[in-house]
Amino acid sequence: MKSNYKVSKTIKVALLFLCITHYASSQVNDENQIKRIYETALSQGKSYDWLNYLSNQIGGRLSGSVQAQQAINYTKSELDSLGLDRVWLQPVMVPKWVRGTPEFAYFETTPGVTTNVPVCALGGSVATPLQGIKAEVIEVQSIDDLATYGEAKLKGKIVFFNRPMNATEINTFSAYSNCVDQRYSGAKEAGAYGAVGVIVRSMNLRLDDYPHTGSMSYGDLAVNDRIPAAAISTNAADLLSTALKLNPEIKFYFKQNCKQFTDVESYNVIGEIKGSTYPEEIMIVGGHLDSWDLGDGSHDDGAGCVQSMEVLNLFKKIGYRPKRTIRVVLFMNEENGLRGGNKYAEEAKGKNEKHVFALESDAGGFSPRGFSFDASDANFTQIKSWENLFEPYLIHMFVRGSSGADIGPLKGDNIVLAGLRPDSQRYFDHHHAENDTFEHVNKRELELGAATMASLVYLFDQYGIVNPK
Amino acid sequence: MKSNYKVSKTIKVALLFLCITHYASSQVNDENQIKRIYETALSQGKSYDWLNYLSNQIGGRLSGSVQAQQAINYTKSELDSLGLDRVWLQPVMVPKWVRGTPEFAYFETTPGVTTNVPVCALGGSVATPLQGIKAEVIEVQSIDDLATYGEAKLKGKIVFFNRPMNATEINTFSAYSNCVDQRYSGAKEAGAYGAVGVIVRSMNLRLDDYPHTGSMSYGDLAVNDRIPAAAISTNAADLLSTALKLNPEIKFYFKQNCKQFTDVESYNVIGEIKGSTYPEEIMIVGGHLDSWDLGDGSHDDGAGCVQSMEVLNLFKKIGYRPKRTIRVVLFMNEENGLRGGNKYAEEAKGKNEKHVFALESDAGGFSPRGFSFDASDANFTQIKSWENLFEPYLIHMFVRGSSGADIGPLKGDNIVLAGLRPDSQRYFDHHHAENDTFEHVNKRELELGAATMASLVYLFDQYGIVNPK
Repeated sequence: MKSNYKVSKTIKVALLFLCITHYASSQVNDENQIKRIYETALSQGKSYDWLNYLSNQIGGRLSGSVQAQQAINYTKSELDSLGLDRVWLQPVMVPKWVRGTPEFAYFETTPGVTTNVPVCALGGSVATPLQGIKAEVIEVQSIDDLATYGEAKLKGKIVFFNRPMNATEINTFSAYSNCVDQRYSGAKEAGAYGAVGVIVRSMNLRLDDYPHTGSMSYGDLAVNDRIPAAAISTNAADLLSTALKLNPEIKFYFKQNCKQFTDVESYNVIGEIKGSTYPEEIMIVGGHLDSWDLGDGSHDDGAGCVQSMEVLNLFKKIGYRPKRTIRVVLFMNEENGLRGGNKYAEEAKGKNEKHVFALESDAGGFSPRGFSFDASDANFTQIKSWENLFEPYLIHMFVRGSSGADIGPLKGDNIVLAGLRPDSQRYFDHHHAENDTFEHVNKRELELGAATMASLVYLFDQYGIVNPK
Repeated sequence: MKSNYKVSKTIKVALLFLCITHYASSQVNDENQIKRIYETALSQGKSYDWLNYLSNQIGGRLSGSVQAQQAINYTKSELDSLGLDRVWLQPVMVPKWVRGTPEFAYFETTPGVTTNVPVCALGGSVATPLQGIKAEVIEVQSIDDLATYGEAKLKGKIVFFNRPMNATEINTFSAYSNCVDQRYSGAKEAGAYGAVGVIVRSMNLRLDDYPHTGSMSYGDLAVNDRIPAAAISTNAADLLSTALKLNPEIKFYFKQNCKQFTDVESYNVIGEIKGSTYPEEIMIVGGHLDSWDLGDGSHDDGAGCVQSMEVLNLFKKIGYRPKRTIRVVLFMNEENGLRGGNKYAEEAKGKNEKHVFALESDAGGFSPRGFSFDASDANFTQIKSWENLFEPYLIHMFVRGSSGADIGPLKGDNIVLAGLRPDSQRYFDHHHAENDTFEHVNKRELELGAATMASLVYLFDQYGIVNPK
């Protein structure tokens, strides 16, 4: 027994040694691969040139627009040129809302004395009558305020939602979440009290002259009960609020001729590298190809699209053949319908595809800080064990939380969802506004984001997820 | 003995409990104070308005210029208005170098066929002759290359230093350090081989049309042996390099009439809140008030100045009375002489003042990521124990390294030096160039930096440094 014990001990020591050296060598291997990924992204990346084309040759890509179709054609052709195993378009019906001629608004302090204000229709809003709407305006801070004022005070008025984003929140997305109900549901709620229109302070932490659009919904309200809704710039909101304090009888006028058409066919753009060892395990990386129509959609979400394309380009460039199947998915219609995300998940389920990991970049092309994960405890523990690999690249944020709107419909027990988390301080300066443009994206920041995404995908490809069923 | 033991055990437990609750209550107190600091900075901060004035009403503030004096007057008057215990000017003699009329440069492919290039004199350079210099140009990658070519190939030529900053370095300051010898010593070294002028590729990671100035030195070279030096934009450097490959006999022409005058008197601007408990222990927070003359010096280092002023303003605003003396120091002449930093340290030593902590912000007004510390092991251990207090503000970088040029002369055994470390990706897009301007500073990022600095100063004020002698 004793000698057996010795042998067994020797074997154990040898095994332990093997494990340690194996661990050490995979650690070194991972470090080297990640280094190659970052260096390649920063020196030979294509994301910035792609974004230049999307932004400056095509521009804003609202669902159902000519530009959205141009973006589909362009990105498909660029993916075709990367030598992937397969590139295809996934048809999806999308809503088509059109802004029409430029909106116009002013407030009238006394008859004939007017001040023009920068304004834009909210996405999905109905038009005003041809001659516009003019009415007294009542300022509120929240949807709850509507019940306080009641129909007596709101009927026939334009409701002005003016609760600002909270500047003291460090994460600006949290400030946005706590504010955006005014934009999304303001018109539906105010209409119920007989209001004739809604004006919303732009979702912007900065004081400037850009109105910010974004989606709104009437819920199941009958078409005839829908009142028009528009956003005004933060400077205009402050000015109007001050003017109302001096004279509560001020009238507000706005005119917009936006229109909702019937749905049209569009596409998700998909490219794939087939896995060499576990081809049935699918990992996706994506952003949304549609954008609002005011700017050119560089940060939201041109950046996320080109970074996702770059992930596959980087693997090709460094000659990395993934064990698992990697797909880039450029989703259509995140902004006003999420039809692309829903369609992708629906087909994946229909085909019984096994998606193990999905990563979205939809928070701007700013300096990456880390990721937010929607994952089980076991998977999150594995993810946390990779943190040290990202330290040389100043990536420090590995938190649990939401991932991305487009990949949300894939949620399930056997998939890890993740969202890239760039620095958020400047995002809402540009979000859904005319100044979401290419010159506000920094090449290095964009490339670092792509490299950070590729590194995470590489690790999931190497080690898979824990307990896939 | 047994009962004694019990008593002693009870006392120990009670003491432990007291320690734990004391620790817990100071932790909570620190959390609350830091929260107030951040919230106040983001909602009532003055730094952005101050920077607006410095940048847009005054502009570039080169040492010895009228604008530098205006900046001294303005910041002193703003500090006066904060109700500090003392505000004063510390005289210091500074160099006065003047750019003169705009520089002009071109390269000549064949006689009469010229291409103009964006150019600027390096700070401290001598002028060209009135009619300019025209000579054949030889491209080199490093100062070491000069010895390889030797006098035979360099005499009578213009040497073109064209080694780019390394894009694959994550920390852009490191890429800068590995490149800037060309700018700083290129003219001195090339002159020794009989070159007649030096052209340097701008220290810029981006391809654009801005030439970047910055300091250079002739060492102890006699005035007659000094050759003029200028920077050209990165786009121009690439173009010239390509043109030289096609035709090595290209001639380069440049003209500049910059001039070094005799030293003039200027000032460091200093404001102080006297410590309530340990007034002899001095902590300073600062940036440099001078800047280069091409842009308005918003990032370099207007941002650091207004953030430093904000630290004292925030303490006043939240009603925090420091135990130790806190000084804001706006140093003069960091860019081309460091006279202000040297003078401050010299006087501090002369008066036997006990400086325990110095913090500089001179890396741009971008999103703060953390600090770099020049500190003993014991002090760094204490600092690391504070890291968790910064987590809610996404500040994660507590590393050892250099602090700041202006506070460097204070270095000693009994002082902790620190530098604010903002995100560095965009810094060199603007550094020393015409586009270092106010619109490239984001209000929130600037304010978050100021709050981060104030929080660290608060902690040093609360706990002092370890083992002060």
